[in-house]
Amino acid sequence: MYNLLKGKRGIIFGALDSKSIAWITAERAVEEGASIVLTNAPVAMRMGTINELAEKTGAQVIPCDATNVEDLEELIDSAVKILGGKLDFVLHSIGMSVNVRKGLHYTEEDYDYTQKGWDVSALSFHKLMSVLYKKDAMNEWGSIIALTYMAAQRVFPDYNDMADNKAYLESIARSFGYFFGRDKKVRVNTISQSPTVTTAGSGVKGFGGFFAFAEKMSPLGNATALDCANYSITLFSDLTRKVTLQNLFHDGGFSNMGISDAIMDDFMESQHNEQNPS
Amino acid sequence: MYNLLKGKRGIIFGALDSKSIAWITAERAVEEGASIVLTNAPVAMRMGTINELAEKTGAQVIPCDATNVEDLEELIDSAVKILGGKLDFVLHSIGMSVNVRKGLHYTEEDYDYTQKGWDVSALSFHKLMSVLYKKDAMNEWGSIIALTYMAAQRVFPDYNDMADNKAYLESIARSFGYFFGRDKKVRVNTISQSPTVTTAGSGVKGFGGFFAFAEKMSPLGNATALDCANYSITLFSDLTRKVTLQNLFHDGGFSNMGISDAIMDDFMESQHNEQNPS
Amino acid sequence: MYNLLKGKRGIIFGALDSKSIAWITAERAVEEGASIVLTNAPVAMRMGTINELAEKTGAQVIPCDATNVEDLEELIDSAVKILGGKLDFVLHSIGMSVNVRKGLHYTEEDYDYTQKGWDVSALSFHKLMSVLYKKDAMNEWGSIIALTYMAAQRVFPDYNDMADNKAYLESIARSFGYFFGRDKKVRVNTISQSPTVTTAGSGVKGFGGFFAFAEKMSPLGNATALDCANYSITLFSDLTRKVTLQNLFHDGGFSNMGISDAIMDDFMESQHNEQNPS
Amino acid sequence: MYNLLKGKRGIIFGALDSKSIAWITAERAVEEGASIVLTNAPVAMRMGTINELAEKTGAQVIPCDATNVEDLEELIDSAVKILGGKLDFVLHSIGMSVNVRKGLHYTEEDYDYTQKGWDVSALSFHKLMSVLYKKDAMNEWGSIIALTYMAAQRVFPDYNDMADNKAYLESIARSFGYFFGRDKKVRVNTISQSPTVTTAGSGVKGFGGFFAFAEKMSPLGNATALDCANYSITLFSDLTRKVTLQNLFHDGGFSNMGISDAIMDDFMESQHNEQNPS
Repeated sequence: MYNLLKGKRGIIFGALDSKSIAWITAERAVEEGASIVLTNAPVAMRMGTINELAEKTGAQVIPCDATNVEDLEELIDSAVKILGGKLDFVLHSIGMSVNVRKGLHYTEEDYDYTQKGWDVSALSFHKLMSVLYKKDAMNEWGSIIALTYMAAQRVFPDYNDMADNKAYLESIARSFGYFFGRDKKVRVNTISQSPTVTTAGSGVKGFGGFFAFAEKMSPLGNATALDCANYSITLFSDLTRKVTLQNLFHDGGFSNMGISDAIMDDFMESQHNEQNPS
Repeated sequence: MYNLLKGKRGIIFGALDSKSIAWITAERAVEEGASIVLTNAPVAMRMGTINELAEKTGAQVIPCDATNVEDLEELIDSAVKILGGKLDFVLHSIGMSVNVRKGLHYTEEDYDYTQKGWDVSALSFHKLMSVLYKKDAMNEWGSIIALTYMAAQRVFPDYNDMADNKAYLESIARSFGYFFGRDKKVRVNTISQSPTVTTAGSGVKGFGGFFAFAEKMSPLGNATALDCANYSITLFSDLTRKVTLQNLFHDGGFSNMGISDAIMDDFMESQHNEQNPS
Repeated sequence: MYNLLKGKRGIIFGALDSKSIAWITAERAVEEGASIVLTNAPVAMRMGTINELAEKTGAQVIPCDATNVEDLEELIDSAVKILGGKLDFVLHSIGMSVNVRKGLHYTEEDYDYTQKGWDVSALSFHKLMSVLYKKDAMNEWGSIIALTYMAAQRVFPDYNDMADNKAYLESIARSFGYFFGRDKKVRVNTISQSPTVTTAGSGVKGFGGFFAFAEKMSPLGNATALDCANYSITLFSDLTRKVTLQNLFHDGGFSNMGISDAIMDDFMESQHNEQNPS
Repeated sequence: MYNLLKGKRGIIFGALDSKSIAWITAERAVEEGASIVLTNAPVAMRMGTINELAEKTGAQVIPCDATNVEDLEELIDSAVKILGGKLDFVLHSIGMSVNVRKGLHYTEEDYDYTQKGWDVSALSFHKLMSVLYKKDAMNEWGSIIALTYMAAQRVFPDYNDMADNKAYLESIARSFGYFFGRDKKVRVNTISQSPTVTTAGSGVKGFGGFFAFAEKMSPLGNATALDCANYSITLFSDLTRKVTLQNLFHDGGFSNMGISDAIMDDFMESQHNEQNPS
């Protein structure tokens, strides 16, 4: 709509289906004038509908297991070739906990699962940036974003080991962001997004209740996937060049709320009902 | 019980009655071997029962309006004289919002009231430290604490302009704490305490509901006034000499919670009831 | 350049001269399609060159002492009339410490000066929002920004009482932002900007050294006034609708640095020189 | 000295030699009346002198690889047996980066090394708490502490992947601390300690320069290993029962400094020298 990304080239990880934040970000990036390459893990590609998106955005899809450095190297080489030059932006929207999938409680983690989830959800971001950095594949003033969640700072009991993975991910953004900024003038940030109705997000136990709670706690309500895509566009644009090493809360205000009137009203009602069962 | 403050001298501001955190801290400080001077605003002294505490702790009471620099100077001079030497610790437990008392909503503040509340609740801490600093009235490795509340970081709608006052207070702790540390080896911290059933705390609108909410959100429940007194004792002791410029959450874990299972259960129940009125 | 603010109406406070962040933001807002009203305190208008800017941007200038509620009411009424509708964005770029101007050390504040600076630098933001809120003068999904500095979180000894003022200002953004979000769907944020070479900024003692220190500490270097203007444009645009109650660091990464290699190199050199004077 | 831990039982991980924080904490805990069990990894035991400490404190040493759940189970069983009851406190002072040891730059990590360091430095804390929790081995109001470093929040370039490990460690403290608090009334915190002259700490590249920088930045100077031991004692005691899920900075004020006068003086000198080489 605004040509904010006119002439820019980027890679979008993690577009599973049309509810995905990555999916909508890809659409919005192309609307804003960017050329993109799409990628996802082979297994996720089979489950989802990424080829639809590819058609819609005129983008090529390159399968890539983001925990595999060789895969990443091939992806980056191909993307630079396909897009005709170095990259301006990258979106890392990857996360998965085997412990969550298997229904294991946080206090009863299987540590092989824990390691797998950490590798996929967190270390993959280091691997990705390491390849981009060594190949010198980013243009100056490029922008790298990973999606994260506030469980990295505060306890959400059902978020399980993803909380710890997100804390590690955000730390990588700072640690690697320093070198990427110093040496390549590239910025690295994370967006800490509201609970979002996506195929991945909804898989977390009790997601519905938590989504409703956040909606009522946030003065502007939850940020949607489209809101997040729009916000990402601004962070990929040339208008935010000096924003780096930040974890940016994008959540309708949730992160700085102690309690809202709406939540307090519901709470008082539940207390009243406990004392006066009907 | 432990002689943690044996031989130490201190001043305790803000003991109104036996529910006050300052009151219980005074008792605990004396139990731990300290000699203290008590002080409060003349008007608060008339409303409360500080003389009981004075008798119990063998302490003298010196009235002092903490917004009045001359009063503070006389207080410090007297305290040093009475206690027989420089001070080792000071507790600032002072806060008052005229807007809250008058029932004015945050969006409709009367700015004269706002200024009065800011002077009493926040600027008084600067005035106090300025007098202590200029008179060189603190011993090396002394400890100064002010009580605060998490509304300085996050929104609690009924906390009104006290939120802003507490943010200013915590900033003073850092700003003045630097000079007090550098020049006098004195540490300055704030304790960010759970909602506490005191005569002052209970005055905030909707306190009961909020207290119950925090109790259910915190894995260890709310910290009581006695808990806070005990924590303050450790921060006055010689075992915490290198803790400075910090805002220390003392709240059973509330500050790092996103949501607890107990709160989620109540929330789900209220949602259920909304959809299925009995 | 992008029409990001096409059809939007706003008020810009605090454009003193062509180095001002507010000045450049005004220029950029108009370039992006906005209609604006400019305002500043009468005394600042005499010192500066705001009429130049007015001519350049086709904007009217309305003098306003932002500590005076009546002035603010007249300003808002006039702006809505002149611009032909409710407002979409407001920039609060106002700050002044009499203690700093008079050269008083933080430990020796004159409290009348402190109060004046607090009123101008912090409370004015509450007054402004209160008038906007009561007059219902903001469009839904409007955006209000105040400029701040990281001294609100960490100690910069020469920043004096402006540190405490900025802490209060940031708290107002959260406290009022809750009500503005809940009731009017308006977002309120602060931008915590790098030290910037402006006529106001340069007045702080030791500014040159501090500017150079921040430049070497930040992986992307300091954010300039133009960088800040560009960032503000994104936050006024429709692409960031769910960002609220946030304090957004815009500083080339400074805020999340412990130490940079460049600063460490300089530090080691100074240590070497201390031990080996030439 | 104060009998603060009279009758309490605890386990101390990570006492390598007499410079170790864990070593001094063990000594102080016993002085305060506690009975303890010491433990370390077999390889660390061979390198260090833990038997000296065992003799001095009357403690038994039980070798344990903290990444091995079976080892941890045996350790906890033995400790409870030896000490004659459930535990009151545990200190986790474990950290190691193979990437650092091998001199690999952060941008060039070997991911097998990364995983090993993550397992030792971070995941071991989850494993330890999981065993304690499942065996119900902690008394109510017990206290668990892990040592960490501020690189989890801010960039210290030479700290390498230990920064990310510490971020994960601190997240575990919150995530597991919730369940341990809710179910067992046990508190879990991390202490974020100044750079400390220990055999482990000194191994980090450029440690000397960094130590000196932190010393000059902190208004009270760096916290020593003994300071940290004393602080830990207060956090193990009954006086801090409601402190949980916190990351507690223990650093002479470093964490809340933007810049100190001492560092600015050195910086200005280095700038002067750059322009005026002797």
